[in-house]
Amino acid sequence: MESQQLLEQTVSRIRAADEAAKQAAAHKLDRLTKPPGSLGKLEEIARQIAGITGELNPDLSKKAVVVMAGDHGVCAEGVSAFPAEVTPQMVMNFLNGGAAVNVLARHTGADVVCVDIGVNAELSHPGLVSRKVKMGTDNMAVGPAMSREEAVRAVAVGIDIVNGLAERGYRMFATGEMGIGNTTPSSALLVALTGTDVETAVGRGTGIGDEGMRRKRDVIRKALEANRPDAGDPLDVLAKVGGLEIAGLVGVILGAAVNRCPVVVDGFISSAAALVASRLAPLAAPYMIPSHLSQEQGHRVLMEHIGLRPILQMDMRLGEGTGAVMAFPVVEAAMKLMNEMATFESAGVSEN
Amino acid sequence: MESQQLLEQTVSRIRAADEAAKQAAAHKLDRLTKPPGSLGKLEEIARQIAGITGELNPDLSKKAVVVMAGDHGVCAEGVSAFPAEVTPQMVMNFLNGGAAVNVLARHTGADVVCVDIGVNAELSHPGLVSRKVKMGTDNMAVGPAMSREEAVRAVAVGIDIVNGLAERGYRMFATGEMGIGNTTPSSALLVALTGTDVETAVGRGTGIGDEGMRRKRDVIRKALEANRPDAGDPLDVLAKVGGLEIAGLVGVILGAAVNRCPVVVDGFISSAAALVASRLAPLAAPYMIPSHLSQEQGHRVLMEHIGLRPILQMDMRLGEGTGAVMAFPVVEAAMKLMNEMATFESAGVSEN
Repeated sequence: MESQQLLEQTVSRIRAADEAAKQAAAHKLDRLTKPPGSLGKLEEIARQIAGITGELNPDLSKKAVVVMAGDHGVCAEGVSAFPAEVTPQMVMNFLNGGAAVNVLARHTGADVVCVDIGVNAELSHPGLVSRKVKMGTDNMAVGPAMSREEAVRAVAVGIDIVNGLAERGYRMFATGEMGIGNTTPSSALLVALTGTDVETAVGRGTGIGDEGMRRKRDVIRKALEANRPDAGDPLDVLAKVGGLEIAGLVGVILGAAVNRCPVVVDGFISSAAALVASRLAPLAAPYMIPSHLSQEQGHRVLMEHIGLRPILQMDMRLGEGTGAVMAFPVVEAAMKLMNEMATFESAGVSEN
Repeated sequence: MESQQLLEQTVSRIRAADEAAKQAAAHKLDRLTKPPGSLGKLEEIARQIAGITGELNPDLSKKAVVVMAGDHGVCAEGVSAFPAEVTPQMVMNFLNGGAAVNVLARHTGADVVCVDIGVNAELSHPGLVSRKVKMGTDNMAVGPAMSREEAVRAVAVGIDIVNGLAERGYRMFATGEMGIGNTTPSSALLVALTGTDVETAVGRGTGIGDEGMRRKRDVIRKALEANRPDAGDPLDVLAKVGGLEIAGLVGVILGAAVNRCPVVVDGFISSAAALVASRLAPLAAPYMIPSHLSQEQGHRVLMEHIGLRPILQMDMRLGEGTGAVMAFPVVEAAMKLMNEMATFESAGVSEN
């Protein structure tokens, strides 16, 4: 299917959460042997998953973190602590199972799906999903990062990959990414879509110093000046100051939503994709499960704009989907609590 | 061994963390394929566990949540939303595997060790560890909750149980409790040991309303007035305004520390025990792993006094050890990251 058509069909087919299933979950939770509401966000998650899947006890055991990798022309401006060659090197690390996200995915019983959507190198590995849209974005400080057509193609790649995984039985997803320099477009998206000031939106990424921070802020101001993205047109913003892997993750989120699967959102870059996805398809927002609050400065305000409240406070700032994968056991715990706990009646416990 | 002697020996034998192992862990973590420090608290935990165990890759797979159950004479003052009969009912629920902590312990591969240290009912079950010190505390609003000798016996029960579990190969512990009314003594301990004002220290427990809150605060003021606990003598405070299960958990924490095992601290009541333990044995503090920030009002200030920063923000307020058990997979993730990730050299990834 043509990319534009796949995107439009996907957005139009995302359904609102199943309110009857959510209410059935709420009723069930209130019968369990605990003070009402005392499991906090675990109860919220159980209700949300019921609304997403329409079931009280869905099988979410087959799950994947989709790691989208892409390069950034804006690295020419010196915005990152690491050289751009690290993007393809880390892709090989993912494929060889040695990165943090691999360790955490093994720990939580998830599969890592690694996608080359825009790495600036020729990559070849039997485990790699090769869906390169272009060899990295162009330098957004001097012009658009991508054409609108390229952005749509990258979103469609994400949708298509999740559709394929859902056909193979995957029922829960996490967003992950790799792309040296990609906190810069993420901050630019936050500024362009919400009007957040640049000082708030820009953080240290993988570890730049004060001078690097000033340069990064200047580059973002320059990019917004050069491109004048239209805040009312999320695809325009995504194309002009976004990234290929970010666009791919927009597709992952929309694809999860249309397949009625929960999608756990990782840190700053993934949340920028989630913000774009929620602007393209407001009905996609209830399919998102928050994970951690990143140490990256702008993440808190970004989460607030999407309406997500993080469950993990780990001071992480790595990306790759590491925080999202850590939330998988929490989601599973929530569903087990709803389905395995005794009720007041069955256990003979007095109520208040 | 006599209880007082066991307590004194235990406190005197707790060793400081192994600084060489912590440094070796820090060095190892900095070689892994990630920006330095980017795994945040996961790196902190990995270093801490190395310091506790003296090993970089300890086997922590055999783990238990010790759930201490006891009743509270102060319930006569109407401080809880639930009737006191719920304590023995919930103990039977734990033993039958139907409570929230059972579900979460199965989910995380932990065993539940349920201890009757002071339930006001005759209980019998093959799975129950019966170590009753007395049939619930006395009403602290009119006199001491326990004698000093009873408090010491309850602490010794906790130490003895962990010593036994450690002999059977358990290497990681979590604190759990059940005791209708036990946020009241926990708040009283916080006030008495730290000088925190009563308004800050007292919360809604399992769900009392505004009138109940006022009554609870009055009861705590009355108890402190009636007993005049000596803030410089943690055992005096524990005996006069504490609880049997809280004293038992003090013992669990000291027992874990003397056996060089990490102990994950649950919410408000467990943290009150952790505060007492850290006052009795300051060297025990580095053996404590934080878990969640409870919705119970005084928990944040209590955690600050112990120096613990929570990793989970779940708005939970159930107790039983539920939040602590949720942190087990986080600790395991931290250790796997340190031991299974590729290094910059092995993966051929460039450094900054």
